[in-house]
Amino acid sequence: MKIAIVGLGTVGSGVAQILTTHKARTAARTGTNIDIVHAVVRDLKKPRDCDLPSSIVTDDLAVLNDPAIDTVVELIGGTTIARDVVLTALKNGKNVVTANKALLCVHGDEVFRTARELGRTVCFEAAVAGGVPIIEAVGQSLASNQVTSLEGILNGTCNFILTEMFLKEKTYNDAVRLAQEKGYAEADPTMDVAGTDAAQKLTVLVRLAFGLRISTDDFLVKGIDSLTLTDLQQAAHLGYRVKLLCTAKLHGDKLELHCQPTFIRREQPLADVDDAYNMIELHGDAVGKTWFSGMGAGQMPTASAVVADIISLAVGRAQLTFPRLTLLEESTGITILPKEEIQRRFYLRFSALDKPGTLSRIANVLGEHKISISSLIQHDETLGPPTPSTDDESYVPMVIITHLATEGQMLAADKDLAKLKCLAPPHVRLPIRD
Amino acid sequence: MKIAIVGLGTVGSGVAQILTTHKARTAARTGTNIDIVHAVVRDLKKPRDCDLPSSIVTDDLAVLNDPAIDTVVELIGGTTIARDVVLTALKNGKNVVTANKALLCVHGDEVFRTARELGRTVCFEAAVAGGVPIIEAVGQSLASNQVTSLEGILNGTCNFILTEMFLKEKTYNDAVRLAQEKGYAEADPTMDVAGTDAAQKLTVLVRLAFGLRISTDDFLVKGIDSLTLTDLQQAAHLGYRVKLLCTAKLHGDKLELHCQPTFIRREQPLADVDDAYNMIELHGDAVGKTWFSGMGAGQMPTASAVVADIISLAVGRAQLTFPRLTLLEESTGITILPKEEIQRRFYLRFSALDKPGTLSRIANVLGEHKISISSLIQHDETLGPPTPSTDDESYVPMVIITHLATEGQMLAADKDLAKLKCLAPPHVRLPIRD
Repeated sequence: MKIAIVGLGTVGSGVAQILTTHKARTAARTGTNIDIVHAVVRDLKKPRDCDLPSSIVTDDLAVLNDPAIDTVVELIGGTTIARDVVLTALKNGKNVVTANKALLCVHGDEVFRTARELGRTVCFEAAVAGGVPIIEAVGQSLASNQVTSLEGILNGTCNFILTEMFLKEKTYNDAVRLAQEKGYAEADPTMDVAGTDAAQKLTVLVRLAFGLRISTDDFLVKGIDSLTLTDLQQAAHLGYRVKLLCTAKLHGDKLELHCQPTFIRREQPLADVDDAYNMIELHGDAVGKTWFSGMGAGQMPTASAVVADIISLAVGRAQLTFPRLTLLEESTGITILPKEEIQRRFYLRFSALDKPGTLSRIANVLGEHKISISSLIQHDETLGPPTPSTDDESYVPMVIITHLATEGQMLAADKDLAKLKCLAPPHVRLPIRD
Repeated sequence: MKIAIVGLGTVGSGVAQILTTHKARTAARTGTNIDIVHAVVRDLKKPRDCDLPSSIVTDDLAVLNDPAIDTVVELIGGTTIARDVVLTALKNGKNVVTANKALLCVHGDEVFRTARELGRTVCFEAAVAGGVPIIEAVGQSLASNQVTSLEGILNGTCNFILTEMFLKEKTYNDAVRLAQEKGYAEADPTMDVAGTDAAQKLTVLVRLAFGLRISTDDFLVKGIDSLTLTDLQQAAHLGYRVKLLCTAKLHGDKLELHCQPTFIRREQPLADVDDAYNMIELHGDAVGKTWFSGMGAGQMPTASAVVADIISLAVGRAQLTFPRLTLLEESTGITILPKEEIQRRFYLRFSALDKPGTLSRIANVLGEHKISISSLIQHDETLGPPTPSTDDESYVPMVIITHLATEGQMLAADKDLAKLKCLAPPHVRLPIRD
């Protein structure tokens, strides 16, 4: 089997390392030798973390037309050159391995349709949750099930930032800086912290598990960039941890779908996932609850998934599986539950004017929207000191936990709460996973 | 695809239910219809939990010779008739799906060799950890790795009993009775509580992950049948939970191997697995740490795994994978670390005579065997009341945590401690997983 790797960054170098260091192992497990015959890079002068002979490293994408190649491994990321590389490879009769969730989220239809039409295979285990073999679990191991719900911590960078904030009492900015130093976060961390990366992974899982082709615009996506240590600590006082949680849950033929920072009860496995680890909790109608966890990112965990795909192609498994995956369904009968109908409990935090009447005004607004209060915390030392105000009035932090309410009720209440003069920003609202 | 199911007990009925209820689903995921054409049972009169036409249910194993059958699904358990069924099926040109860990542990060489020689495939996802797809994970998803350690809670019944004891403060006997009422434990629970079932599953995983063909006699196996609530509570006071833990851990080319009740630190995922759930923590040289968890037993979780194997055969994946698994290696270079050399910290609990000199005698014995004490708890109310003795001397419970010591040192010390007149039974010793 002869492969070309496009992109020798962190993951690409890791793939090259595994394939060159463990040649005998992969040969034993595939019955064939896997040779890297081309490695395409943008900058030939950049030093690399792998031991490939310079003769096979090139900056010319034309080598992908080499008829000797069976498989193109796309590891450059992004949705422009990567799209060209993948589509060209498929048209040239190659199978493709990719770790690119953005490509599959944005151009999934085109990529998968091209592959199907040309009888080629696209493998994408590494595109979701790095070293956690969740694509294979959904597509193969649990194929006897209808997945009924799928919840996951899918962005290792966000999870690292939240862990640092909570366990080390860091500010959001300090935690982001450390994530950058450790190589978890990009110089511009927006894709991670705004929730886009996790939401893109969720679209790939939803396509696979529910046959639904969606974009990140089709559901509620919020990031971790406005979270404060106070909220993480309040969550802990109330028996929860805050995680950036992706959710796809079937209610009849409606799919509840969102990606946002969420209170998760401490006893739940998802609450205990720290650092850059990912976890998916998957519920199948036969198997019940299952959990899959491992490193969500990083050189070797992601490379491990890429090489698993290469091995699967070498053995011939992937070619049998790919045509059977629900990637291009025209109609599954399942539709997305409108976000206004998503029903949960909520955590609200306000800065409230420390005067009689404030609470009744807030309670009034919530009552008008038929949102009932489950508990309220005010004047509590765990909430930190009051905020002095310019007009000599003091604002105190207040936390409210609601009973079940819909996102629609909350959105309407948000607007009316914003008009209250007795409340100062921030106005924090986080959903609770019970 | 035409299959015969042998055994329509709990799991067999579940398999029939999935295949009959979700015919369209399995057809979509395999591209073929899967038909049950024979179901062999011991007692035709017994009422069954599935909807198979009586015309296909028989008590005659001769139907397995039917040339129309592709696949025989063995779900009767045991190592006698099951062995005949499986070997006959293979010889008749059928592929085999089995959930029988005892068969694979005891007759694995014969079963796997026969299949290989005849070009047939044996699938056994359901034999280990029920609904947790750990066989596929080791054999496929993580095939780019050398597994370096594998630790698991592999017996749902034991885990249920330990959970009931600890969380509900039940005695061992009461917890076993409840496990029997719930259908988790057999009338004779020995295979589960003595650790045999978990150890058999460990041998299957070790064969797959390390290419080592071993029997349960080759390593340390202890059950949960002598555990008391006191020890589980002491573990909690010290920050641990007690679980029946199976371990296979590579040190160079030596494999540390054991299955026994073990203290697991509370923050570790393995410590938090409750009820009949299973979990495997697997460390691969590329992927790092991964965790797989789900129901370890029960009708539908196990049936889910059996049907996943049937689907894999229908698609043709299993036939490609099976010949590449390390099931019959002649030499891997890996050997079992002698149990005397296994090094851990230990929890010791004694009934000690409440007189001066007792502690120094115990410390002396441990010191002679070069075992040093990390901490000691005595006269603590968490340990319960002193035991009155016939000769008016009172015995008080004492707990010692050692520093690292080998099993060999501890075995030698056990003998000398047993001779001390200042100690009365029980003499409890449990390893600590740090």
